[in-house]
Amino acid sequence: MKILGIDPGTNIIGYGIVEKNKNSISPVSFSSIIIGQNFTLSKKLEIIFDGISSIISKFVPDEIAIEELFFSKNIKTAISVSHARGVIMLAAEKSNIPIFEYKPNEIKQAITGYGKAEKIQIQNMVRNILHLEEIPKPDDTADALAIALCHINKQKWNNLLKNYEKKHSN
Amino acid sequence: MKILGIDPGTNIIGYGIVEKNKNSISPVSFSSIIIGQNFTLSKKLEIIFDGISSIISKFVPDEIAIEELFFSKNIKTAISVSHARGVIMLAAEKSNIPIFEYKPNEIKQAITGYGKAEKIQIQNMVRNILHLEEIPKPDDTADALAIALCHINKQKWNNLLKNYEKKHSN
Repeated sequence: MKILGIDPGTNIIGYGIVEKNKNSISPVSFSSIIIGQNFTLSKKLEIIFDGISSIISKFVPDEIAIEELFFSKNIKTAISVSHARGVIMLAAEKSNIPIFEYKPNEIKQAITGYGKAEKIQIQNMVRNILHLEEIPKPDDTADALAIALCHINKQKWNNLLKNYEKKHSN
Repeated sequence: MKILGIDPGTNIIGYGIVEKNKNSISPVSFSSIIIGQNFTLSKKLEIIFDGISSIISKFVPDEIAIEELFFSKNIKTAISVSHARGVIMLAAEKSNIPIFEYKPNEIKQAITGYGKAEKIQIQNMVRNILHLEEIPKPDDTADALAIALCHINKQKWNNLLKNYEKKHSN
């Protein structure tokens, strides 16, 4: 089962595809779409949409996990990243692949067991779980892999819970 | 020359097409895309993108004017409307039709001459300029027409200014 994790942004969009088999998790491909500054907002959105669409077509993931936005202060950044996240969600919806969304603290919790973990702790866990020699760069790529791994972890617990409930309802 | 004005939103997206000839401005078509509440965000974004894309294909405007978002307080609404505005801008960019953006106070200023005009003042001006029997409903439709009219007005002044500068630089 292949999971595509996406870390939304306006100028850098991280993505990571992870393959989960019965007893192993391995990286398939991971990188970031990096967009030049000299584009209009609408052109940037087109590059993001086309980029994510082509990644989906190329790797055909079974499920897509996208980070939810959390902004408490900077409304300007929130507006700008939300435009980008809109076209990322559109690309995912157009593919008819199930979409899952996770909040930043859920991702931290799922990866390190602690919802307020530091960025470097998350990155080291991503490197360990996927047996990578180095922490993927830029940060957005590592974040995207963390989102995919968070989804795998969440699904595992959901399945365990379902099995438990099924067992105890009989 | 046909102008498409768009008022972005998550559940209601107003649009209005206005034709500008040498000495007249007339309405071509105006309405709102209204989206049910029972959809996921990504499905809503797809409905918005497909809806705006089909309006563009049907009316083939020469220019598209979209309201900029201005939020000073409600970051949750800002995030949600920005997702929708992202896919609206994508639909416009995909059509290769020039896109123009206007802030709410620019629109008010262009229509009524006063940047802090009340909604009803704007709506009455829209009705008068386009010789409509009634104010278009819902408000989002009237707003979209106001955005198209703002663009026509702004372009007129820009052209006058260009001609003036040209005349005085010779």
